[in-house]
Amino acid sequence: MPTLPPARLDRVLETALYVADMPASRYFYVEVLGGEVMLDTHRLVAVAIGGTSVLLLFQRGSTEAPLPTPGGVVPGHGGYGMLHIAFAIAAGEVPAWEARLGAAGVAIESVVEWPAGGRSIYLRDPDGHSLELATPGLWPSYQPAPHVNG
Amino acid sequence: MPTLPPARLDRVLETALYVADMPASRYFYVEVLGGEVMLDTHRLVAVAIGGTSVLLLFQRGSTEAPLPTPGGVVPGHGGYGMLHIAFAIAAGEVPAWEARLGAAGVAIESVVEWPAGGRSIYLRDPDGHSLELATPGLWPSYQPAPHVNG
Repeated sequence: MPTLPPARLDRVLETALYVADMPASRYFYVEVLGGEVMLDTHRLVAVAIGGTSVLLLFQRGSTEAPLPTPGGVVPGHGGYGMLHIAFAIAAGEVPAWEARLGAAGVAIESVVEWPAGGRSIYLRDPDGHSLELATPGLWPSYQPAPHVNG
Repeated sequence: MPTLPPARLDRVLETALYVADMPASRYFYVEVLGGEVMLDTHRLVAVAIGGTSVLLLFQRGSTEAPLPTPGGVVPGHGGYGMLHIAFAIAAGEVPAWEARLGAAGVAIESVVEWPAGGRSIYLRDPDGHSLELATPGLWPSYQPAPHVNG
């Protein structure tokens, strides 16, 4: 391959899930997980997660065809199965999340302590997508912030 | 629903794709898109995207069963179809990305100018997953940084 000009991806901006029951998914991601709705249509609910991530909830079966818009054509896509997403949470918020999920009636499917550090709590969304709430430590790029005072 | 204790998702940490040909996908996401490999197994290649996101490339068909680990069981998941991910890029890097994709022989499928601002370049990965390189503007939570000097 020829030498490529330098260019950089800053981050993953949008992550997509395909859902069967949009009101149920909207409720789950907003009321239970605390996301903020930025766009709400029959086809797509876009949810802000923290300040830097966008979760796209697409009505399953509505996205396969290219979508013409005034500014250009959005290519088709679409997914099936039970996908996986992990969300970053602070280590100190694990008890709050356990309590929040318990109060909402959401079962914790599994807990994993990672060899490199960090803990993950696994749960399912209304479509059975596998969600993970992960504290810092498990990836070289996801480490606890250094303590300012030792 | 009862009042829930406060708890916060910081961001989407991990986004997963399911791939048919791991070497081809590894090459694409590392050599073409500039990701950094953090873990490389037959089942999973984990790629750091910038400093805050992790892209998980799973060998399709290898993730449906729960995976026991010394620290706990990772629940099963799995996906089919052509999923969608958007990556954040700086507005000033659009020409560099166009050149980089061109040099790598990756076709640009579509370009969209968003009503709220920002531009998206769409392309396909080796499995046909729909990738978007998006400049700031299109979401309320994804806006250009304010200029320091007017």
